[in-house]
Amino acid sequence: MTENRIKFEQLRQFITVAMTRLGLPETDATIVGRLMAEAELQGSDGHGVIRLLPYARRIRAGGLNLRPNIKIIQERPGMALLDGDNGMGHLVMQRAAEIAIEKARNCGIAWVGSQFSNHAGPASLYARMPMAQDMIGLYFAVGNANHLPPWGGLDMLLSTNPIAVAVPAGEEPPVVLDMATTVAAYGKVKAKAQRGEMMPAGWMIDRLGQPLLDPKRADEGFLMPIGGYKGYGLSLIVGLLAGTLNGAAMGSQVVDFNHDDTTVTNTGQAIMAIDLSAFGDVASFKARVDQLVRELRASERMPGVERIWLPGEQSHEKRQNNERDGMVLPPVLLQQLDTFALELGIPGLQST
Amino acid sequence: MTENRIKFEQLRQFITVAMTRLGLPETDATIVGRLMAEAELQGSDGHGVIRLLPYARRIRAGGLNLRPNIKIIQERPGMALLDGDNGMGHLVMQRAAEIAIEKARNCGIAWVGSQFSNHAGPASLYARMPMAQDMIGLYFAVGNANHLPPWGGLDMLLSTNPIAVAVPAGEEPPVVLDMATTVAAYGKVKAKAQRGEMMPAGWMIDRLGQPLLDPKRADEGFLMPIGGYKGYGLSLIVGLLAGTLNGAAMGSQVVDFNHDDTTVTNTGQAIMAIDLSAFGDVASFKARVDQLVRELRASERMPGVERIWLPGEQSHEKRQNNERDGMVLPPVLLQQLDTFALELGIPGLQST
Repeated sequence: MTENRIKFEQLRQFITVAMTRLGLPETDATIVGRLMAEAELQGSDGHGVIRLLPYARRIRAGGLNLRPNIKIIQERPGMALLDGDNGMGHLVMQRAAEIAIEKARNCGIAWVGSQFSNHAGPASLYARMPMAQDMIGLYFAVGNANHLPPWGGLDMLLSTNPIAVAVPAGEEPPVVLDMATTVAAYGKVKAKAQRGEMMPAGWMIDRLGQPLLDPKRADEGFLMPIGGYKGYGLSLIVGLLAGTLNGAAMGSQVVDFNHDDTTVTNTGQAIMAIDLSAFGDVASFKARVDQLVRELRASERMPGVERIWLPGEQSHEKRQNNERDGMVLPPVLLQQLDTFALELGIPGLQST
Repeated sequence: MTENRIKFEQLRQFITVAMTRLGLPETDATIVGRLMAEAELQGSDGHGVIRLLPYARRIRAGGLNLRPNIKIIQERPGMALLDGDNGMGHLVMQRAAEIAIEKARNCGIAWVGSQFSNHAGPASLYARMPMAQDMIGLYFAVGNANHLPPWGGLDMLLSTNPIAVAVPAGEEPPVVLDMATTVAAYGKVKAKAQRGEMMPAGWMIDRLGQPLLDPKRADEGFLMPIGGYKGYGLSLIVGLLAGTLNGAAMGSQVVDFNHDDTTVTNTGQAIMAIDLSAFGDVASFKARVDQLVRELRASERMPGVERIWLPGEQSHEKRQNNERDGMVLPPVLLQQLDTFALELGIPGLQST
């Protein structure tokens, strides 16, 4: 059974070698390899190794800077603004998280924004980073393709702009929220189309504002923001904080990186770290989180509901299982990756 | 026509005098009077002068400290934790905003949390405060009554925990989001019941998870979080940041202040200020916001949609109209306030 499973270390190594072969310096390839493998490990499969081929396409088209000079261009004791110099988003955000953590140690909290960054994988990856230092992490990003109009409108000027927040617990798994500001992520729509299934009402609407159920007609409509105009507002605010504030792309400036491999995306992101020790005793905080988590989990349930989940709990279990047993990649993806490996002249995942 | 309209200054004065008569020191009554009148001015009528009677009930029952020693109990350069000493929430949050602004001037950003605070009115009131100093404001609060269970559960352990964010623009009105993490606020349900109308599907569900449409049966169900499990996660995260982090009430500790006038609520809130000048030139930022706002507003519209609104734009117009023409209060409320004024031995709103 374990033969078809890929171990974390194997996947990390594979991505690292591929990234080196694509031209990234070894230190950078190592960071990207680890973060992309971690995305896969925690079950963020839409943001894991499946992105290797699109990233490679953009690198080969010259749309990514392989030798970025990632530098602080604005700074105060509690904040920094990073110019990512069009490097891989993972590198920019890893650096942003390090700076945020360092600054939060002194100021109690810190905020680091980015401009000229790129797609960096799942939001929770970066929101989780401060947790190891007993800090709460928050992450906001401008998505790399516009999928929704302003409320009542038809021009797609906003993206799924995600929010992630990671809160350390004591004995319980951390509470980790990672959500797009739309009811469904666009990847879910594509998956429904592949399986030939209809979408539930509420995922998308057409240009008349009517429910759009056929995922094959996705081009004729838009994703629905959560809570209607509220999600529209939330997507806009995330874009203002992660994009406009940083001098990064927002609105019509956003480059659809699915259909454009060369234009500089000028992706904006922001990471925030909150040092728990600034607010009081860390152990008591964690005990309070544990108590709250247990209280929610023990709630009486609706008929047919087997278990109350906390945000991030399913991902936590997946991570533990994947660490122990290895990860199962879809056969089609595995095949694509091995073809790609052959092309790069490196060992494939199934042959290692 | 203007005879029935109440001017801002008149309302501010009325609330201030009433609060003084209820036992608040004059300086405190003046702050509360101004903030409650401002809530009314911006159209937050569920959080304006309608709250005077419930506040008075709690004050008379001894549930609010009229001489609070509001003090910083934890501090770092970029943060502070305030003990509100069970004073009026308006006083605690006004102080929190002042500290956040002061600290953000040095650190670029700042965060001030509260414990032992109380209901403070509309979230946007406090998120808006940093804007006068060319700062973005964010506000999070634990609601003062639990109205929703964890996703799939039946025990009401979470509140509508609001989020407000205020972003300054240049020539355009500021972008101000002020939203509960539920599809409808509880006040809207009560309004439907009063008018004898049914609720749209999606506002509430019953204990079997079915849509609940009759607002008179509201006690048999729960508010729906926006985006289903996403809104549940958002409400929980806001509660962790504004409540648990500050050592304030969360989950089963939350006191329903509609049905309990004496138990200390230990309300938790948090204000954040982001200094625009730390990120670069303030005028360019505001110009970028203007540009984005105009782009969204100019979007092609769905059939039947007259106008694309930006978050906070309707409230901005209401504020301007109310400043110019005065405010229209519902006759029933006006009557209640005048009866109350008589009882306090102060001039009523209609007699002044």
